[in-house]
Amino acid sequence: MDERLKKQLAFALEIDKAKNIFRQTHLSGNGRNENDAEHSWHMAIMAYLLKEYANETIDIARVMLLCLIHDIVEIDAGDTYAYDADGLKTQKQREDKAKERIFSLLPAEQKAELIALFDEFEAAETAEAKFAHAMDNLQPLLLNHSNHGGDWKEHNVTAAQVYQRQSGTKPGSEKLFAVADGIIQEHIKAGNLKA
Amino acid sequence: MDERLKKQLAFALEIDKAKNIFRQTHLSGNGRNENDAEHSWHMAIMAYLLKEYANETIDIARVMLLCLIHDIVEIDAGDTYAYDADGLKTQKQREDKAKERIFSLLPAEQKAELIALFDEFEAAETAEAKFAHAMDNLQPLLLNHSNHGGDWKEHNVTAAQVYQRQSGTKPGSEKLFAVADGIIQEHIKAGNLKA
Repeated sequence: MDERLKKQLAFALEIDKAKNIFRQTHLSGNGRNENDAEHSWHMAIMAYLLKEYANETIDIARVMLLCLIHDIVEIDAGDTYAYDADGLKTQKQREDKAKERIFSLLPAEQKAELIALFDEFEAAETAEAKFAHAMDNLQPLLLNHSNHGGDWKEHNVTAAQVYQRQSGTKPGSEKLFAVADGIIQEHIKAGNLKA
Repeated sequence: MDERLKKQLAFALEIDKAKNIFRQTHLSGNGRNENDAEHSWHMAIMAYLLKEYANETIDIARVMLLCLIHDIVEIDAGDTYAYDADGLKTQKQREDKAKERIFSLLPAEQKAELIALFDEFEAAETAEAKFAHAMDNLQPLLLNHSNHGGDWKEHNVTAAQVYQRQSGTKPGSEKLFAVADGIIQEHIKAGNLKA
């Protein structure tokens, strides 16, 4: 087997580890914690099905790709909970180091391409990255909504914190932000989220 | 919220259940059984990274989409192991019923679109479906290879059975079929697969 293909297959095997990186979100039906691979798969399909609600014209293939790869760095860096203030301070440093190691398994030009995609997602400036962020926010919200806000209750999350996170949904989709807003309001009323 | 968006979100929540459909393949590092969502995520990324090895010109966005949705029907139909002769006999009937129920959660034209994609994958006739099948075969082979053929040993699988399955890799990619062939030969020599 040539070196190029060997590198590609080594990377393919390496990313299997994302299936062991667990998030704070629980699966519907009050299931177990969700992992990064599942979350990314779910986001990519949701992006495809909800693409009509993007604020701007988007290249849906690139959105899906951003969704699929955006959490691979967590294989080394671990998952940082959206409401973990201390973890968020060191997140970029940990993820930059991880990005370099993991994507270096690929042939040089594919390494550059995937790092560019990862950086595009993180910067949240392109239409595609903004819509991918909307999915990154909406997907766990849907699961947590179906579980009566259990993840928020477990971590004493406030409505202000959830609104801060969901503010990243608005640049991607006003329409889906309105959905998130409705869900948050429902959980404030039900006492699942502290106002 | 309008009816259309409600339907789309109901479907998005429903497919969460694919994370509880476990396959016979084990994660690398002799890990736990893999589920459908993880398998589909892995296939879609592999398809993107290995697209240069497709026998024919492919629309990679459609390949990724085929990978992402091809196992959703297993939410109702369950996973059918590639080497389960009895299960394979009833697979189509079970999956057709599941396809109708699950995709009916979507608005009519998205239901039709996803059923068409599912059927395209199953028929394995388009260049995209053939390449997606190559991923469906190669992805578990890579994991099982990394686990020293543990899944084959557990089920007493023979080399002839593995070759029959991997024959579906060749129409998508001669180059990746050669990789599969090399791996199978290695495991026959090591005694992990019965010749």
